[in-house]
Amino acid sequence: MTSPLDPKNPLAAIEEAASLYRNWGRWGDDDVLGTLNFIDAAKRIQAAGLVRQGKSFSLSQSFDGDGPQKGWRGRVNPVHLMSDTGLAAAAGIQGFPHGIGGADDMVFMPLQASTQWDGLGHIFDRKKAWNGRDAAKVVTNEGDQFTGIQTSASQFVTRGVLLDVGAALGVDGQLPDGFAITPEHLDATIDQQGVSSQVGRGDILLVRTGRLTRARAEGWGDYAGGPAAGLSFLSLGWLHSHEIAAIATDTWGFEVRPNEFEDAFQPLHQIVIPNMGLYIGEMWDLDLLAADCAADGSYEFLLVAAPIPFTNAVGAPVNPIAVK
Amino acid sequence: MTSPLDPKNPLAAIEEAASLYRNWGRWGDDDVLGTLNFIDAAKRIQAAGLVRQGKSFSLSQSFDGDGPQKGWRGRVNPVHLMSDTGLAAAAGIQGFPHGIGGADDMVFMPLQASTQWDGLGHIFDRKKAWNGRDAAKVVTNEGDQFTGIQTSASQFVTRGVLLDVGAALGVDGQLPDGFAITPEHLDATIDQQGVSSQVGRGDILLVRTGRLTRARAEGWGDYAGGPAAGLSFLSLGWLHSHEIAAIATDTWGFEVRPNEFEDAFQPLHQIVIPNMGLYIGEMWDLDLLAADCAADGSYEFLLVAAPIPFTNAVGAPVNPIAVK
Amino acid sequence: MTSPLDPKNPLAAIEEAASLYRNWGRWGDDDVLGTLNFIDAAKRIQAAGLVRQGKSFSLSQSFDGDGPQKGWRGRVNPVHLMSDTGLAAAAGIQGFPHGIGGADDMVFMPLQASTQWDGLGHIFDRKKAWNGRDAAKVVTNEGDQFTGIQTSASQFVTRGVLLDVGAALGVDGQLPDGFAITPEHLDATIDQQGVSSQVGRGDILLVRTGRLTRARAEGWGDYAGGPAAGLSFLSLGWLHSHEIAAIATDTWGFEVRPNEFEDAFQPLHQIVIPNMGLYIGEMWDLDLLAADCAADGSYEFLLVAAPIPFTNAVGAPVNPIAVK
Amino acid sequence: MTSPLDPKNPLAAIEEAASLYRNWGRWGDDDVLGTLNFIDAAKRIQAAGLVRQGKSFSLSQSFDGDGPQKGWRGRVNPVHLMSDTGLAAAAGIQGFPHGIGGADDMVFMPLQASTQWDGLGHIFDRKKAWNGRDAAKVVTNEGDQFTGIQTSASQFVTRGVLLDVGAALGVDGQLPDGFAITPEHLDATIDQQGVSSQVGRGDILLVRTGRLTRARAEGWGDYAGGPAAGLSFLSLGWLHSHEIAAIATDTWGFEVRPNEFEDAFQPLHQIVIPNMGLYIGEMWDLDLLAADCAADGSYEFLLVAAPIPFTNAVGAPVNPIAVK
Repeated sequence: MTSPLDPKNPLAAIEEAASLYRNWGRWGDDDVLGTLNFIDAAKRIQAAGLVRQGKSFSLSQSFDGDGPQKGWRGRVNPVHLMSDTGLAAAAGIQGFPHGIGGADDMVFMPLQASTQWDGLGHIFDRKKAWNGRDAAKVVTNEGDQFTGIQTSASQFVTRGVLLDVGAALGVDGQLPDGFAITPEHLDATIDQQGVSSQVGRGDILLVRTGRLTRARAEGWGDYAGGPAAGLSFLSLGWLHSHEIAAIATDTWGFEVRPNEFEDAFQPLHQIVIPNMGLYIGEMWDLDLLAADCAADGSYEFLLVAAPIPFTNAVGAPVNPIAVK
Repeated sequence: MTSPLDPKNPLAAIEEAASLYRNWGRWGDDDVLGTLNFIDAAKRIQAAGLVRQGKSFSLSQSFDGDGPQKGWRGRVNPVHLMSDTGLAAAAGIQGFPHGIGGADDMVFMPLQASTQWDGLGHIFDRKKAWNGRDAAKVVTNEGDQFTGIQTSASQFVTRGVLLDVGAALGVDGQLPDGFAITPEHLDATIDQQGVSSQVGRGDILLVRTGRLTRARAEGWGDYAGGPAAGLSFLSLGWLHSHEIAAIATDTWGFEVRPNEFEDAFQPLHQIVIPNMGLYIGEMWDLDLLAADCAADGSYEFLLVAAPIPFTNAVGAPVNPIAVK
Repeated sequence: MTSPLDPKNPLAAIEEAASLYRNWGRWGDDDVLGTLNFIDAAKRIQAAGLVRQGKSFSLSQSFDGDGPQKGWRGRVNPVHLMSDTGLAAAAGIQGFPHGIGGADDMVFMPLQASTQWDGLGHIFDRKKAWNGRDAAKVVTNEGDQFTGIQTSASQFVTRGVLLDVGAALGVDGQLPDGFAITPEHLDATIDQQGVSSQVGRGDILLVRTGRLTRARAEGWGDYAGGPAAGLSFLSLGWLHSHEIAAIATDTWGFEVRPNEFEDAFQPLHQIVIPNMGLYIGEMWDLDLLAADCAADGSYEFLLVAAPIPFTNAVGAPVNPIAVK
Repeated sequence: MTSPLDPKNPLAAIEEAASLYRNWGRWGDDDVLGTLNFIDAAKRIQAAGLVRQGKSFSLSQSFDGDGPQKGWRGRVNPVHLMSDTGLAAAAGIQGFPHGIGGADDMVFMPLQASTQWDGLGHIFDRKKAWNGRDAAKVVTNEGDQFTGIQTSASQFVTRGVLLDVGAALGVDGQLPDGFAITPEHLDATIDQQGVSSQVGRGDILLVRTGRLTRARAEGWGDYAGGPAAGLSFLSLGWLHSHEIAAIATDTWGFEVRPNEFEDAFQPLHQIVIPNMGLYIGEMWDLDLLAADCAADGSYEFLLVAAPIPFTNAVGAPVNPIAVK
């Protein structure tokens, strides 16, 4: 963005940003991966080379009924149900021979109920999906016919970099709600954290705001959809020029909330998903990893964050693993 | 097993095997990880060192309605439903401002409907769960109170080894149904494949039978629960002494089917899960990886296979990633 | 239909029938009830007057995992899951005081998995829904915005008449698959059954073919979607002129299958739902009622068949009650 | 109850009431219907005779995402999802011939999410279910093996009587939260309403408190589980001696909340379901019917309230129909 942000004119800003940061055609007309194309073999080898201590971290929040969802767009928390149990086995009513017993379970869940990737079919800009395709042709009632999450099943293996903006610029490791993270904040965090935090082509960038830490202390409250720190609309140029493969945060919505325009809804999503082709991770738990990075001063790691490849899904649960 | 297998006496065989290969208490009374304890920092570093070409493979089958499930124990195929679509966005009925549109989706699924880990609470032996706990106390209607899959969320990072028994000993890469894979078959496969196939402490062993390849060609048929090649009850000593961290196959049920006793149900499960504490992966797709291993002669790789950590679940979907 | 049916020209027949039997505007532009409008207060009083013996019959099939569904259009059988049980109560782990214990349950189901009403938004004819509305405006991803099943929540109280065509014209009470029930068959059945079977304005007509009886004896087989007796396309004029309020059968699909045109899909649905505004009940269990009617010679009764009023649903489960 | 109620001693009151009002064995050892046995043919004929005006009323609340549930015991509001839509039909992507199009839908729901019957397996008293059966044997992970809701599929046809206690004794038609409805209140309401309100053997009693009216005006708030007027523990003798077949209210929990003992949970449930064998209806919408009864002074009607007969369910959704 070369223009300063005018809170009263979201559409103009969206139009300008879309044209500036649009990657349509960059990887061919048939592309379904977007910025995941920035990850190449060399990047994966580099990423594996970051495993020096043999420590692994799950960056997943829990998946259960005690989550933040409150029904918006039908999103409830995952409902986990047992179809068979140890109680039944102990009661001797399972009917299996020779002492074998078993338990089994099922789940109903919105695919974006907890830690997740937004797929490229999740958001449209003026009826267009990633790479310029018509939204109506891309996501029908049978799901995403082009960029379904299964197309990226093997892609999320790369170098991860944690920018703990909450620790660098916040109080007690937390940014206040409504804090819009700009390029200056990202760069300042990199400066504070040191050389391991350099962000480059093909990296997946993890941005910690501390919002989850607060939810953990105070209860979910409005974690899902309420005010939170997050990326500023002004960060678009930075995100684009650094050629990151994907980005994830510890918040519900990745971008700052309330949004920076007076009447808008997730304008940053509107640019980065359909226009840039950038995968967004939301509701990640970065706290344990952040503590470890602070302790050893190294903010880079191998990141393997493979979504469950539900066919034609526009988002998917993921248990992201960072290995140092 | 020192005794030969007597098909008419499953209970005696189960009792003997349980006492021979039981790991209860090996990692303390409070242990919830079982053989995952064999994975240590050095192992993870070694595994990352196997990433030499920067290739990644998803070992996941698809998750959708065209799967093998037929309703046994209520297990249906995943039902994926769109709560919002590009059709709605194109129709202009979503009510979002400034041209942003969105799609969203939900799923109902048995946790073991497709590619999955069996958790340690999935199977009991004579009313006991892993580490000797009472089945009735471990898995209630609220799920697994001790060994829920979330306890292993960060654990599945290690060296993977593929034994393509189908290619080594089968016809057209496939073993016939009912083929019971014994230690001799495992060792013969290792011999054929070469030194990269050595299996040791902390590895996750992937065994390809070719059953999925056939399902892909011929339709699912009885893939879920029907006849298939798989591990023999006679392989128990081998699995135990090699101190593997986990094992996975390209079949529905891991062990040979029909089972090797005249009247039995998954007797190998009955030993390895509650007694050995071994995680079992089922319905993995090993075909692309197998082709690559055959091409370059290297059957080892970094394996990151992190289950979605549904709280208190006894099994969980996973998108396993192999990186070479 | 004045024309004889030409199996090679379904579209012409559909167009002719649609124009002949279309009720659009008959009850005003805002109408959402279609032929349910034929039920009036006098009809309800008449219907209640048919209760002479004080016998009640449920016409519902069971709702469980042992149903006929095989996944077409994602339709699985209902999955019923216990979230709490007597096993848990007996184990003393529920945490309630003073000895109270409880069980609770949940279900995932397609709304047309078992005994059901097709709502008026279930079927469209050339992109038009009931009363001439645009299909795209009527049923969005948020369901039926006009004729959702809740609009008929209190309507299904009227005289029911059973025409047991299976008993009248079949062998052992069953019509063969592919038997197309024409006006002649309906009238012949009325003649055989006697005066209580006269069908008139506002009645709900129940047609028994015997198909469910056979499924009960032989297993579900292709009950869902396979060959079956059912209403002929030639019955349209009869259905229209008799001014019935609704119709239901003991089959999956109401109309004869295979359909009577060489290349067609449920052409009778295409006329009666969007054009006539006729509610169709499917998968009803008419056997007990039929036996009683045969025994006492009276084929009329009070019918109360209230769907669960899922907001904006295009179909709904129902437990229809006949009272004699 | 001959004893006055001692808020500090719930267990003694429960024990006394259980022994006083227990109907075990009254209808044989195999009974599964409880007080539904009070409904006989004569009662059904009498009930049908109450249909004099031909008016019908649905007593069902809506079934959708805007309901009162907040996740207690995993109970979420029904999630209704479209698997196919008019948008898809209009887009011409459904693949059906000759212009037929269709919409289809599915639901995930707790069976007691909205208007429902509590089945006889829903509640236990000191590990015993209805008729003295062991709770552990009655409700396993496979549901209610004896008194599953399907056993009552045809039973709910009888005379209904509305006692609008809210109108009779409340302000603006509403009782305050915590108002415990005693026999005196029931009798006073009958007196006010007049002779049509007499309650007798086999009737289903509907008690309106006005709580739903308030929720409709003010939002759900704590409708599900929070404070509300309801039946007093002191009403047990009245309910027992009047030999009603079932009872239903416009509240979440039928009995007064907070409960009348200092430390208790639904003690009235604990007596009436497992001991008396009384079906309880909850979350019914009695407002339209109440207005009509007030207008014509007649509080009796035919009530047909058939639950969806989910096999082995301990509760079920119902769309109750009153006909006057």
